[in-house]
Amino acid sequence: MTVRIDLNSDLGEGYGAWKMGDDDAILDIVSSANVACGFHAGDPLTILDTVRAAAGRGVAIGAHVSYPDRVGFGRRPMDVAPAELTADVIYQIGALQGICAAAGTRVSYVKPHGALYNTIARDPGQGAAVIAAIRAIDPSLVLMGLAGAPILAQAEAAGLATVAEAFADRAYTAGGELVSRRDHGAVLHDPDLIAGRMLRLAAEGVIEAADGSALCLRADSLCVHGDSPGAVAIAAGVRDRLRDNGVVIASFTGARP
Amino acid sequence: MTVRIDLNSDLGEGYGAWKMGDDDAILDIVSSANVACGFHAGDPLTILDTVRAAAGRGVAIGAHVSYPDRVGFGRRPMDVAPAELTADVIYQIGALQGICAAAGTRVSYVKPHGALYNTIARDPGQGAAVIAAIRAIDPSLVLMGLAGAPILAQAEAAGLATVAEAFADRAYTAGGELVSRRDHGAVLHDPDLIAGRMLRLAAEGVIEAADGSALCLRADSLCVHGDSPGAVAIAAGVRDRLRDNGVVIASFTGARP
Amino acid sequence: MTVRIDLNSDLGEGYGAWKMGDDDAILDIVSSANVACGFHAGDPLTILDTVRAAAGRGVAIGAHVSYPDRVGFGRRPMDVAPAELTADVIYQIGALQGICAAAGTRVSYVKPHGALYNTIARDPGQGAAVIAAIRAIDPSLVLMGLAGAPILAQAEAAGLATVAEAFADRAYTAGGELVSRRDHGAVLHDPDLIAGRMLRLAAEGVIEAADGSALCLRADSLCVHGDSPGAVAIAAGVRDRLRDNGVVIASFTGARP
Amino acid sequence: MTVRIDLNSDLGEGYGAWKMGDDDAILDIVSSANVACGFHAGDPLTILDTVRAAAGRGVAIGAHVSYPDRVGFGRRPMDVAPAELTADVIYQIGALQGICAAAGTRVSYVKPHGALYNTIARDPGQGAAVIAAIRAIDPSLVLMGLAGAPILAQAEAAGLATVAEAFADRAYTAGGELVSRRDHGAVLHDPDLIAGRMLRLAAEGVIEAADGSALCLRADSLCVHGDSPGAVAIAAGVRDRLRDNGVVIASFTGARP
Repeated sequence: MTVRIDLNSDLGEGYGAWKMGDDDAILDIVSSANVACGFHAGDPLTILDTVRAAAGRGVAIGAHVSYPDRVGFGRRPMDVAPAELTADVIYQIGALQGICAAAGTRVSYVKPHGALYNTIARDPGQGAAVIAAIRAIDPSLVLMGLAGAPILAQAEAAGLATVAEAFADRAYTAGGELVSRRDHGAVLHDPDLIAGRMLRLAAEGVIEAADGSALCLRADSLCVHGDSPGAVAIAAGVRDRLRDNGVVIASFTGARP
Repeated sequence: MTVRIDLNSDLGEGYGAWKMGDDDAILDIVSSANVACGFHAGDPLTILDTVRAAAGRGVAIGAHVSYPDRVGFGRRPMDVAPAELTADVIYQIGALQGICAAAGTRVSYVKPHGALYNTIARDPGQGAAVIAAIRAIDPSLVLMGLAGAPILAQAEAAGLATVAEAFADRAYTAGGELVSRRDHGAVLHDPDLIAGRMLRLAAEGVIEAADGSALCLRADSLCVHGDSPGAVAIAAGVRDRLRDNGVVIASFTGARP
Repeated sequence: MTVRIDLNSDLGEGYGAWKMGDDDAILDIVSSANVACGFHAGDPLTILDTVRAAAGRGVAIGAHVSYPDRVGFGRRPMDVAPAELTADVIYQIGALQGICAAAGTRVSYVKPHGALYNTIARDPGQGAAVIAAIRAIDPSLVLMGLAGAPILAQAEAAGLATVAEAFADRAYTAGGELVSRRDHGAVLHDPDLIAGRMLRLAAEGVIEAADGSALCLRADSLCVHGDSPGAVAIAAGVRDRLRDNGVVIASFTGARP
Repeated sequence: MTVRIDLNSDLGEGYGAWKMGDDDAILDIVSSANVACGFHAGDPLTILDTVRAAAGRGVAIGAHVSYPDRVGFGRRPMDVAPAELTADVIYQIGALQGICAAAGTRVSYVKPHGALYNTIARDPGQGAAVIAAIRAIDPSLVLMGLAGAPILAQAEAAGLATVAEAFADRAYTAGGELVSRRDHGAVLHDPDLIAGRMLRLAAEGVIEAADGSALCLRADSLCVHGDSPGAVAIAAGVRDRLRDNGVVIASFTGARP
């Protein structure tokens, strides 16, 4: 039986004169592009260029929605009221849908970014606000969220399809949570080790936790980064290891790199 | 033969805690609502509330797109490169389309705001950038522009439908341009005088210029304001005078107040 | 013995075309003006006009520093890192100092705004970041904070002078905290009742808590609002009641309305 | 007789997570640092870190003030009203002064950035607004402007000291203007050629124009860039050529790299 998995990455995260990451290199590796929508990163022209580049390679496009915090790159928790959050998410998805329409493609999924991603993983209030936004603008949009976190069941109970995401370069606790970035060993750097972990996760649904135990985790998509030459090499290594072992890299939409 | 004309107004121009104008009062008067898209005014929740209020009354919705200049309220000319301007306009239309979809309605037209409106009236370069944006995202969107200005023919030549707009409370030169706001008498304040001018314009296609001459002007829509109690009274006076004289107030979409 | 107390209010909270409150009316009432510094409200020209108006009346000027959240008006808690927060506060104080220098006056104190105010009242980490900012830019600046809250002792231990602030239109718990805005009766509206409470607080250092008990509270300054005609009337009522009973209204700098 | 000249560069132009240029490398080369003030680039923490790094090396600090256009990096002409522009410039200078005070140093000069720099070079209206800002906040601040342009005489007539600036990597017309970036050959790339041109300019007050003629130009400061490895190499080449030929590199404040 063929194993399939998605590779996703955060793209379009420049802003005006400022650049972020090597989008061209990473678009040759992934099957899904989480495109910034202007609230943490991404001015309209950068977004449009990113969408065109993704569409030209057949990569699936997701709305990488965020809290409104450009100077903090969307990484700082904010206590946004549910009605505001719902409207913010609708606005961002709509903006990206418009740009996709102009580029002859479409938005397939929504992946909250940074602090919003982490908050909704376990906060049902803000989670409900994001789910309400997706249901209001287009209930066929898929929500990408943290593998193993309550947000996925919450979204499914509300009628949304979901994609469970694991992080290629992050360590996990035995309980299935990401090791905090404040702790030693939270971020992995060895391309060979990472590739091996991702192959095992894709093939067996198991990843070794920080304490050495075997953690069962269902993951539909693996997140890789492109913000440094080392990160691109890690991403390419994951792709190659998966392919060399017969794993098909494809978006849930069928898009392939 | 029944005369029909549209009444439009700028709405949703609050931002967070700041309010602007009496949207509820003006939505009971107009047939078309130019809704701010976030670049000069309008945060997502304000926009969503505005769209819901407009849709609830059957008022047609237009995207009031702007230069990215919130502190200047979009009123300051900016030398934005065409590719940037096109992307900015697509982004704003898309965002409003998303909010309209969430509210069960749709965007019917695009009216550039403030300095962008004035610039494209006669600058074919920036005009082309706006036209390209509309064609790219949805060529069925109608462009609302200054009655008598070259932008209308430019847009029509590019395949867009247009709506020619006149301003209820502004004086016109004999040549058909708006008297500059820097000149005495540029803005009219007498509700009775304004109502009479608008009736004549709707019924005869003629408006008295500042020098007393009769100016022929084709106008499909009349712009009224709601940013002060006096402005709302002027708008209501225009509506009443038109209705009392058998003019049907309706958007080109068929929407009526 | 003469009783003295300060009256303060939040001013300069417009932004570009948007207005907020009746600054002229309130400047005739208060002895201290908390002037927005651009992060939650206040564009440079609005700030400059506000500072000129305050200086013209001899009202003391404070820097009303905030989280960087204009669309949320600085009212939403944000998890800003201490180094960022310190730099943000220095930047805002410096900007207002520059505008005061241009207007021939000076900044006398710092009052954090909104969510930042509430957070530092009891969060020593963010409190330390604000204190560090004040000490770095000018340790002679006075910190205005919530009467009875730990931030005041924390600031004094760090060598800053402080002003303890009470709120004219808010209810207090028996424990000395503000009744949450989510609870019934949190905000008071009766001008006569409010004036009486503030006179007692100024004269006796006692305010009646929500449960009817007598709460001892040391307050050096009373906060009044100007964001509605009713608010201005309440503010004027407090001033009149104090004056009529021999209380001198004056800033700690000696400024009087 | 010893020839002295200043080397300046634009620094602190990151924004939050986004970086711009190699500030550390360029701070080892220049005598004056034009530090972004938040309107085109520079968040408070980036500015503070930049100021500390400059002060630690004894490099003079200037306020690199801009139009409020972060997404356009301050490069787009904007029709800002004089009163707004004056307040914007005061605000930015004040913010940087505050950060300098916190870092134990001071602002010595003001260099308008990008489109504002180009506009005031020859537009006396916007020039007067900038001059008014400097005079209002601190008339001892020096204005750095385009060598040969009318703004310098305008500022001197208003009582300000000035520094005339030439650009190391730009071609000049025979009339003394910069060749437009839209024209071929506007930007020079050959480090050896550039170093030779700058030595001649410093030593003889002459630079070869694009048509081969010898242009007399008084320049007190030479602008170099650090936004690419090639740019840093050019800057280092200019410094080395000047030093090797006995030219002393020093700010007008006496600061030396």
